[in-house]
Amino acid sequence: MSTHGYASNRLDVARLEALIDDRFPQIHSGGRIFTVEEIGERSARVRMRHHERMLRPGGTVSGSTMFSLADFSVYVAIIATLGEAGIDAVTTNLNINFLAKPEARDMVASVSLIRLGRRLAVGEARLYSDGAPDMVAHAIASYALPTPGR
Amino acid sequence: MSTHGYASNRLDVARLEALIDDRFPQIHSGGRIFTVEEIGERSARVRMRHHERMLRPGGTVSGSTMFSLADFSVYVAIIATLGEAGIDAVTTNLNINFLAKPEARDMVASVSLIRLGRRLAVGEARLYSDGAPDMVAHAIASYALPTPGR
Amino acid sequence: MSTHGYASNRLDVARLEALIDDRFPQIHSGGRIFTVEEIGERSARVRMRHHERMLRPGGTVSGSTMFSLADFSVYVAIIATLGEAGIDAVTTNLNINFLAKPEARDMVASVSLIRLGRRLAVGEARLYSDGAPDMVAHAIASYALPTPGR
Amino acid sequence: MSTHGYASNRLDVARLEALIDDRFPQIHSGGRIFTVEEIGERSARVRMRHHERMLRPGGTVSGSTMFSLADFSVYVAIIATLGEAGIDAVTTNLNINFLAKPEARDMVASVSLIRLGRRLAVGEARLYSDGAPDMVAHAIASYALPTPGR
Repeated sequence: MSTHGYASNRLDVARLEALIDDRFPQIHSGGRIFTVEEIGERSARVRMRHHERMLRPGGTVSGSTMFSLADFSVYVAIIATLGEAGIDAVTTNLNINFLAKPEARDMVASVSLIRLGRRLAVGEARLYSDGAPDMVAHAIASYALPTPGR
Repeated sequence: MSTHGYASNRLDVARLEALIDDRFPQIHSGGRIFTVEEIGERSARVRMRHHERMLRPGGTVSGSTMFSLADFSVYVAIIATLGEAGIDAVTTNLNINFLAKPEARDMVASVSLIRLGRRLAVGEARLYSDGAPDMVAHAIASYALPTPGR
Repeated sequence: MSTHGYASNRLDVARLEALIDDRFPQIHSGGRIFTVEEIGERSARVRMRHHERMLRPGGTVSGSTMFSLADFSVYVAIIATLGEAGIDAVTTNLNINFLAKPEARDMVASVSLIRLGRRLAVGEARLYSDGAPDMVAHAIASYALPTPGR
Repeated sequence: MSTHGYASNRLDVARLEALIDDRFPQIHSGGRIFTVEEIGERSARVRMRHHERMLRPGGTVSGSTMFSLADFSVYVAIIATLGEAGIDAVTTNLNINFLAKPEARDMVASVSLIRLGRRLAVGEARLYSDGAPDMVAHAIASYALPTPGR
């Protein structure tokens, strides 16, 4: 598939983070825990800094924290691909499987968009404890895309 | 179906909340926002108090906050049904659909368990903005149940 | 919510089945196993006739057969609500939980649409073995709706 | 991860297909459309032969046919990994996203198991039209594993 249509929209990491800070500051309420590490055509890698408020008994990361990471990292991949037009994308569905107990450290999400239609994007997020090989959670998220000109 | 097998495990709301406070205090880290309003055989209703930290642009409730409410309320229904044995149940999968923009007020989750096997429970959570008729989110959550005697 | 907008689109069961036969005859390839029993505003009930080709070991109904029933019955509820405009709706996601072993007889699906937006409909299907009280499968299906005038 | 624990259970493709034919012949009722092309530790690739009965309007493959392929190919990966012990695994949940219109030809599913616990396995299936680069459907399936000695 030609990627020409997206070329002029592409952002680098610094501009993408500035855009999100400007338009969507709530994502960082309670402290800045997400860092965008890498973005590409239909892909993103996001780090979630370990913080005590996200803990569960036994020192693991809570399910809702992993949900947040998965949801946010798919959103980043959409903006990375569509540019500023993606900022109004809205999650319509998220399916998450918890696979293994995460460790009490940073988590990293690796996302690829497996569908990017005119109206709907679907992204797959793979979550790992930083530096560990086994996936701790897997999520598929669908986003409704804003309609141009509305 | 006979419910005799569960009768001796049943808790009232006060004892259930005390049990969760004792065994799972992290659920209330950052402030006590969940209140168990009603429990029954395979069912529960949980209120989430509105709080600014859960907000999204436009004053709506964030997706991860709704995830937390759905996940927690299914967990409450499991403990309501199995008693203390349910406290070690662990979420394995959660699928959530976001249906409408929630309002900036309390949310209420109504749960029923649609499967309660020996090893796996599945609960359905319907989320509403307090007092409003339309469902704002719908979730299905699967929990692995602790194996007796292990 | 006012239902005036849909009033002129509403079909009765006979016209709905004729419409599907005309526009989507493949659904009955291999034999007519689905019967629409009832339709309403955002709801439908569909019966799947028992047939040997859908069996699994032990005489139960196969997962893909239950998928078909869930998917088709949500589609019926969309057409029941939107009228002929719904015929081009396309499934984008289906999440199904298998709850109990179905019996070797007819299955009945009861559907309600929990979201009916401009571009996306979400329906919930509850599947039962005919005459038995316990749900054997539960599905949530999302459909992309055709855009008027395109 | 050491794979020693599974080593003695491993099957080659011919023995795996013979085992399924013997224990689960219904999978081929209506004609043999599935061929196991490759199996490995926690992985499988399965081809679904194109056949007119699986068609939808416009010549594409039906959703329930893709469901069957996804479900079966995860099942194959479980048996490939666990050996004969896996034959009694039962699907508990399947979430499928339809990403693009499939073409009217063979489909190939590529599976990897992302969780293989004592009681639960989770597999991810990627479905392609034979020879085409874009994924047409993506599924995550959970299977309850048989308990040894019960």
